[in-house]
Amino acid sequence: MKKIVVIGAAGTLGQAVSAELKARNEVIEVGATRGQYRADITDPASVEQLFREIGKVDGVVSATGKVHFGPLPDMSVEQFWVGLRDKLMGQVNVVLAAQHYMNDGGSFTLTSGILADEPIRLGASATTVNLALEGFVRGAAIELPRGIRINVVSPTVLTEALDAYAPFFRGFEPVTAQRAALAYVRSVEGAETGRVYRVGY
Amino acid sequence: MKKIVVIGAAGTLGQAVSAELKARNEVIEVGATRGQYRADITDPASVEQLFREIGKVDGVVSATGKVHFGPLPDMSVEQFWVGLRDKLMGQVNVVLAAQHYMNDGGSFTLTSGILADEPIRLGASATTVNLALEGFVRGAAIELPRGIRINVVSPTVLTEALDAYAPFFRGFEPVTAQRAALAYVRSVEGAETGRVYRVGY
Repeated sequence: MKKIVVIGAAGTLGQAVSAELKARNEVIEVGATRGQYRADITDPASVEQLFREIGKVDGVVSATGKVHFGPLPDMSVEQFWVGLRDKLMGQVNVVLAAQHYMNDGGSFTLTSGILADEPIRLGASATTVNLALEGFVRGAAIELPRGIRINVVSPTVLTEALDAYAPFFRGFEPVTAQRAALAYVRSVEGAETGRVYRVGY
Repeated sequence: MKKIVVIGAAGTLGQAVSAELKARNEVIEVGATRGQYRADITDPASVEQLFREIGKVDGVVSATGKVHFGPLPDMSVEQFWVGLRDKLMGQVNVVLAAQHYMNDGGSFTLTSGILADEPIRLGASATTVNLALEGFVRGAAIELPRGIRINVVSPTVLTEALDAYAPFFRGFEPVTAQRAALAYVRSVEGAETGRVYRVGY
């Protein structure tokens, strides 16, 4: 049985990913404020501490990340930094630390999002961060040693998130978290590396 | 005659871009340590001060940016931050500040690089930063008001840089800075927005 860490496991997407993976894997759930383990992935020391506690693993899924939405003409440098610190470097921090706790042939699965490919009004920071994550995966895939793989899932807006996000995503077809979760399973239990799994578009 | 600011004008690429643009434009050269104007684009206050001095412009070209090269298994979080602070946020800082000094129909032209598309060993941070810049341009292009355009030039390795970079780019065909400069001219004097101009690949 593989030991898979799911970061952001209390979120809508994280819950669905955990549920799918639990059928065939030992899942370790990590949250910022809830879950079996707690970690602030924007803090490298917190990430290091997390993996010291967990020990060796066969996979890490990250389904988390904040970005600032706002009009470009009003966006401050500080607002632009939010997504870089949180959604981008949070996930990069996890890979930089956890690669040393990853068993041979293990996998990383990160989360970007449809705005990488389909820009929307107020979304310049999100498009930047999501493509940055796809770049990180493209670069890391050819460098990770010992058969360790890395992929990224890029879902469209989730049905469960429409209450909050519908005004940003007019005309976008949503997918359920359960359907998006399948892409994470393909990454964790499949054999590919350096892939972007687009879901719902 | 258009008033075009070239940031990084003392560099190999910046010199070539300035030379091409000067044939038909007023070019204002900005460097970190050399040139008509000085600015540290990683410091938002320095960028704001620069454009307060220069006033209204018709175009801004950025041909600058540092990134850390090193093996992923040894890369520290701090090393990863170098490219985010410098090549990525340096150029984003310029757009966030200069959009308010840009005349109607003006243009931004940023610089990414071939590693966005073609990863190399030691280059995970560069691939991240270069794709992030392409994401920023994709997102910003649909939000900039008053017909302001934004594009990014992604050159392969420059012939002039081979002394320093050849070991990273074995088998890559280089282009001269003069040839890469043409893409900047297409962006500044053309009509497109949201484009990635790939040069030499």
